[in-house]
Amino acid sequence: MRAIRIGLLGCGVVGQGILRLLHEHAGSLERRLGAPIEVRRVVAKTEGKARAHHVPAELLAFDAESVLGDPEIDVVVEVIGGLEPAGRYVRTALERGKSVVTANKFLLAEEGHALFELAEERGVDLYFEAAVCGGIPVIRVLREALVADSVVAVRGIVNGTSNYILSRMQQEKIDYAVALAAAQEAGYAEADPSLDVNGGDATHKLTILATLAFGAKLLPSHVTTEGIEHISAIDMKMAERFGYVIKLLATARSLPVGLLDLRVHPALVPQSSVLASIHGALNAVYLEGAMLGPSLLSGYGAGAMPTAMSVVSDLVDVGRNILRDARGRVPQRTVPSQLLLRREVQPAGMHVSPYYLRFSVMDRPNVIAKIASVLGAFDVAIHQMIQEARAAGPRAPVNVVVLTHPTRDDALRSALREIQMLSGIVEAPRAIRIETAA
Amino acid sequence: MRAIRIGLLGCGVVGQGILRLLHEHAGSLERRLGAPIEVRRVVAKTEGKARAHHVPAELLAFDAESVLGDPEIDVVVEVIGGLEPAGRYVRTALERGKSVVTANKFLLAEEGHALFELAEERGVDLYFEAAVCGGIPVIRVLREALVADSVVAVRGIVNGTSNYILSRMQQEKIDYAVALAAAQEAGYAEADPSLDVNGGDATHKLTILATLAFGAKLLPSHVTTEGIEHISAIDMKMAERFGYVIKLLATARSLPVGLLDLRVHPALVPQSSVLASIHGALNAVYLEGAMLGPSLLSGYGAGAMPTAMSVVSDLVDVGRNILRDARGRVPQRTVPSQLLLRREVQPAGMHVSPYYLRFSVMDRPNVIAKIASVLGAFDVAIHQMIQEARAAGPRAPVNVVVLTHPTRDDALRSALREIQMLSGIVEAPRAIRIETAA
Repeated sequence: MRAIRIGLLGCGVVGQGILRLLHEHAGSLERRLGAPIEVRRVVAKTEGKARAHHVPAELLAFDAESVLGDPEIDVVVEVIGGLEPAGRYVRTALERGKSVVTANKFLLAEEGHALFELAEERGVDLYFEAAVCGGIPVIRVLREALVADSVVAVRGIVNGTSNYILSRMQQEKIDYAVALAAAQEAGYAEADPSLDVNGGDATHKLTILATLAFGAKLLPSHVTTEGIEHISAIDMKMAERFGYVIKLLATARSLPVGLLDLRVHPALVPQSSVLASIHGALNAVYLEGAMLGPSLLSGYGAGAMPTAMSVVSDLVDVGRNILRDARGRVPQRTVPSQLLLRREVQPAGMHVSPYYLRFSVMDRPNVIAKIASVLGAFDVAIHQMIQEARAAGPRAPVNVVVLTHPTRDDALRSALREIQMLSGIVEAPRAIRIETAA
Repeated sequence: MRAIRIGLLGCGVVGQGILRLLHEHAGSLERRLGAPIEVRRVVAKTEGKARAHHVPAELLAFDAESVLGDPEIDVVVEVIGGLEPAGRYVRTALERGKSVVTANKFLLAEEGHALFELAEERGVDLYFEAAVCGGIPVIRVLREALVADSVVAVRGIVNGTSNYILSRMQQEKIDYAVALAAAQEAGYAEADPSLDVNGGDATHKLTILATLAFGAKLLPSHVTTEGIEHISAIDMKMAERFGYVIKLLATARSLPVGLLDLRVHPALVPQSSVLASIHGALNAVYLEGAMLGPSLLSGYGAGAMPTAMSVVSDLVDVGRNILRDARGRVPQRTVPSQLLLRREVQPAGMHVSPYYLRFSVMDRPNVIAKIASVLGAFDVAIHQMIQEARAAGPRAPVNVVVLTHPTRDDALRSALREIQMLSGIVEAPRAIRIETAA
């Protein structure tokens, strides 16, 4: 019986998790695949670094060519991350007729189209379940289970770190900086958490999901992105008073007019909604099919073992295709490359939704009347309003919170710019979208 | 280019939905599959019945042999339902080397093992995504996405009709019979709703899921089953007072001692849990992997179009295997037949959980003390207790509700039998399990 021979590029926590899984589940994997999976080479970046016992010394190498140049290796597993050199390795592997399994969302979001095309051209498989929401099989469901439906929307919570931070803020009424420090201590946020908290990571994932869902050529730059850095404890508390919680949502919708609506931003979602009950490091994604209606997938989106599990499941799939000589069995995209649509993306300013607004104002006569009048001038209709009782001395600012009726984004932004210049407004107004459909 | 030729057995709402999908999505299905899907024959039961325009008259036939005996048909789609004659047709199709896509949960729950074996023996595919939770790709996820993990538990809401009835009872504080009538009127319950409300349908689905999850030979008779017929408005109201809602749960767990725990029954789940927020005709299934942790899939579990969508997605998958000569590419089970485990099932009496108990008692001195004393004698520890204020006259019974600490099922049943014989107890005590892990 022929083995499926793999080369592993990257030997961090995910790489070591993959080796552990392949080792511990060797028997059941061989039975399920119909052949053993043989690790031929593990390429690490740095020599002499301490690693778990799962990496046999004789497999370790430090140059990618020892994998890419080995004609006996069937599948290259890339868990290095980042655009380069990972991208070069993936391209080379595909060019040389090797199938690739990768967890690299950055690479796929930026260069997915070219890589998909290359894989199709060479008749090999490029699988990437682990790139989006680690342990949730959303790629498989989009590519295979929904093949008979048209996807009209994808929306959800796709970044575990920011969800962990927001959950802590919500449960403990603490401020963003405190919750971020807690997340770092608990191992849920990295020393440099930028991509997680500024929405960049969620944007990469949404780009990949929207590309598959709508068969459109999309890039991260097409997504309107806001992070969670400006959410404060008072916003969380106020949201709760109105029956909402704040979540970082990723949304991709196909609008009836043919435009795509692509957004990553914090949003108020109703406390009674399923997304409000997705706590901590969990992820959740709604796929909405024209026939199927909304369908939800939820689970741990990151972490070494869920990610490793997805990589190995992909390996089994790719291995089955190799054994049955059926590489390329599932097209890389839901739409073949020659039919890829040039879908226009709706400019952020055209988006319409109700908004939560918070103004920090000195308690002067007329300041609220002035806010209301500017909002009115820009056709921003007020649905509810709360003025907080003053907590500190008479000179301290108070919070005025407004929930608006559905409003065009650009009109709202113009109103806020004008309000910010009013006397008595002590900091930039906060504006957070309200998603009732979540 | 070679077409994938199918024969459709059954022309009810699901069958017509399949024809509609194949017709409306013909172009995109052909692109995604790489070949057209050609319907060669549609076998209906009754001649002369009015059908939607989607059934071309020249395709209609009334004997299954016109499909089973046609050597040009690659795939038989069975949407008749029930054990016979559907089972005979499926067996014949597999024996003659045709792949089969079926939505028949009854057949798979009762005869799945023999059918899987037959399909493997003949080297053809037997796909059945639509048999369990129509629009939720739980079979695909169990068979493929979790191939690198070991499943330790499957639990969820797998019957949309009973969930619709319980949701109406919860929201409108109405009694079971009223909610059932409302469900029938809204088209969510059939004229004979027995299998939906007595837990039989959920048991069929759980049997299939547990078979795949644990690689064990299981039958519906291994599942401890209770329906929702005895849930009343007062139970729903009382559950709410304690912070719970009542759901019909299906649970399959691999216990540390090696036994399997297989149950379908109503249960109190915390209001804050995700399962509590699964309303109406929605389904939701938790798959818990050893590596992955809990992962949730939710969506519409039934209905003509979600079911048809799943059938057609299976058809594309089966068609790809035919085109690439890779039939049998994914083993029928997560464990090959020769390795199927003989897993013992835990007897219902050994199950331990906290319980909600409701006693309808005449307000006589000592009756509560007597109940408490019998419970104590059987080691059933009381966690909380509420005695309802009397609503009607002095002779009307009052409800006494007890929440117990975790209790063995058999001890509790013995205690209840004894309590039922006490004077002052006016109807059989109600006992509903509490699932805090839901």
